[in-house]
Amino acid sequence: MIHPPKRLLYGPGPTMVDPRVYSAMGQPIVGHLDPFFFSVVEDIRAGLREVFGTSNDFTLAISGTGSAGMEAAVANFVEPGQKFAVLANGFFCDRLVEMGKRHRGDVVRFDKPWGEGFSDAEAREFILREKPDVVAFVQAETSTGVYNAGKGICDAARDVGALTIADCVTSLGAMPVEIDANGIDVAYSCTQKGLSAPPGLSPITVSPRALERLRARKATIDTWYLDLKLIDEYFEGPKRYHHTAPITLFYALQAALDAVREEGLANRLARHKRAHERLVAGLEELGMEMLVPAGQRIWNLNTPKIPAGVTDAEIRKHLMEKYGMEVAGGFGTLAGKILRLGIMGPLASDEGVNNVLGAIAEALPGGIGAGSTSSRATT
Amino acid sequence: MIHPPKRLLYGPGPTMVDPRVYSAMGQPIVGHLDPFFFSVVEDIRAGLREVFGTSNDFTLAISGTGSAGMEAAVANFVEPGQKFAVLANGFFCDRLVEMGKRHRGDVVRFDKPWGEGFSDAEAREFILREKPDVVAFVQAETSTGVYNAGKGICDAARDVGALTIADCVTSLGAMPVEIDANGIDVAYSCTQKGLSAPPGLSPITVSPRALERLRARKATIDTWYLDLKLIDEYFEGPKRYHHTAPITLFYALQAALDAVREEGLANRLARHKRAHERLVAGLEELGMEMLVPAGQRIWNLNTPKIPAGVTDAEIRKHLMEKYGMEVAGGFGTLAGKILRLGIMGPLASDEGVNNVLGAIAEALPGGIGAGSTSSRATT
Repeated sequence: MIHPPKRLLYGPGPTMVDPRVYSAMGQPIVGHLDPFFFSVVEDIRAGLREVFGTSNDFTLAISGTGSAGMEAAVANFVEPGQKFAVLANGFFCDRLVEMGKRHRGDVVRFDKPWGEGFSDAEAREFILREKPDVVAFVQAETSTGVYNAGKGICDAARDVGALTIADCVTSLGAMPVEIDANGIDVAYSCTQKGLSAPPGLSPITVSPRALERLRARKATIDTWYLDLKLIDEYFEGPKRYHHTAPITLFYALQAALDAVREEGLANRLARHKRAHERLVAGLEELGMEMLVPAGQRIWNLNTPKIPAGVTDAEIRKHLMEKYGMEVAGGFGTLAGKILRLGIMGPLASDEGVNNVLGAIAEALPGGIGAGSTSSRATT
Repeated sequence: MIHPPKRLLYGPGPTMVDPRVYSAMGQPIVGHLDPFFFSVVEDIRAGLREVFGTSNDFTLAISGTGSAGMEAAVANFVEPGQKFAVLANGFFCDRLVEMGKRHRGDVVRFDKPWGEGFSDAEAREFILREKPDVVAFVQAETSTGVYNAGKGICDAARDVGALTIADCVTSLGAMPVEIDANGIDVAYSCTQKGLSAPPGLSPITVSPRALERLRARKATIDTWYLDLKLIDEYFEGPKRYHHTAPITLFYALQAALDAVREEGLANRLARHKRAHERLVAGLEELGMEMLVPAGQRIWNLNTPKIPAGVTDAEIRKHLMEKYGMEVAGGFGTLAGKILRLGIMGPLASDEGVNNVLGAIAEALPGGIGAGSTSSRATT
């Protein structure tokens, strides 16, 4: 029998799983074409529409992780030779660029340093100049902590007739996503962050005008597994077998969405906002400065800078060894410069915040933890 | 709380999940870069080598279903413009052809009617004539019930310097796969058939010579999510983040492979063979004829022909409504002509076989079930 160590998942994800989700995964599976399974699928589709903030009929969960959702978005909506414009200020923006190239798009990018956001004006200027077929941006950039709802980007894209793709991997279930209000055409996410389920599925939603473009598409989609037209024919309409869906993960997602519905989406978002504010206040009290300016911050993924006199590795080691707390560091241009602190789902509470703040305080210079007992104790 | 109906899964998969697998899925998740997670991955890799019958170092589980494994095999090993030869005698062979085209291979196919196998001589003649770069075949064709270990195909392929891809989705864990003994270069499978876990992961194994070919490959692989070089760098070696693996499903697969190890692979295969023989004898006693000749049959997926006087829908309806037993029908050229009866994992026992045989007997003409009480009762 497996005995995993107990972890408190304060990283960017996976995060703590809602207890009812574990119960759901213990339920007996049924066939992938069983009417009961399709009733679970329908319930998930309805729940996802709520958290996405959309009335898009085409809203479902893909049988792969968030990155599969990203690739489905790019592979289905960027035709070979089409101009694909990416607003690039983080790791997952670069991944969008990489996928755009693999699917033979003509990729153009507008770069800003990691941790800086795009103003509506500069995004518009870029989009109007490039006149792309498709624009992609990351609503909540997990590598930096920057949030951009995306309305300004989508407005500009619409003005040049471009579709928009939004990465909502870290925002869904914890921050406002608001697909319809922002005018986002295609958005994908994951299950293991704001939704408090295990990883393995990728929620995706497609606007009617994007669906029209997809149906009119001439070039064959090069990936069969992520061909959204085939996936759609499995999960609705003809219910035609495409692949064998991971039944258990669908049970898990249904239970997770039930939990969101019970709490109420607005309450859930407000809870994450309160936890974020409490965390930021606490970090600042400890003398830590946030990488991202107020107003552009992701609530559920916080990126304080590492103060002088301690390394990110020392802080993370102390938290993991003493409390089993998983916290992530920065990478790319932010390697060694920030922590990435996820406060999501069950941990987005006063207790959850106090708990991690107390542990961090111990690890900082002057604290009683690893930071003060290791390298600096010898100087 | 979700309350799925109790099903006895006698179809081609998903099949009944081992109870210890459900327990494993209730265990708390850890991060996707946690050393504990990588210890689970290593254990899975070792267990998969055993069931695949290989010493291939490159043996792991992809974060998608069996069809993702199929696409990974085709996308990574068939370069654009390369000749891709498919031995085509069933639905999943056609899927290999479809993927070969999407990934821009030059596809040639050798067709036989669904339900007929390929002799070594005719496979060799085809391969020597076509001199392909890659040959694909389905070891256990779920749509028809035909099994071909593949040694003759692999020998011929090696003689022309071609790599071989084998679909082992239905054979793994229930029939001899024997990658090394058969000389198969690339094989993929699923978790929800012979391994008695839920669907969601795709085991894959790659021979050293195939790996060499992959490393020398010049064309970029068009799918990022299924790029085996990137996946390999996540699961071993540098342990570089690629995607967030579905932790829970890895726990499930580990537990399922534990169960196989405990029983002993040889014992497990023998159990499936005995169950198959008992089932075939029972079906023939009921006057049903097998589609596939003896010696070419998949043990764990049996395809009796529908006898006169009853339809496949009537039989399936009786089994589902009276006993919650899921059994599949034929499709494509075999629609309405066969049942597809899976006898796998926990159901591959005397009781499991007797149970479904008794239910089928009731549904046949002269039986006491739906078959006699519905349409025919009125004539």
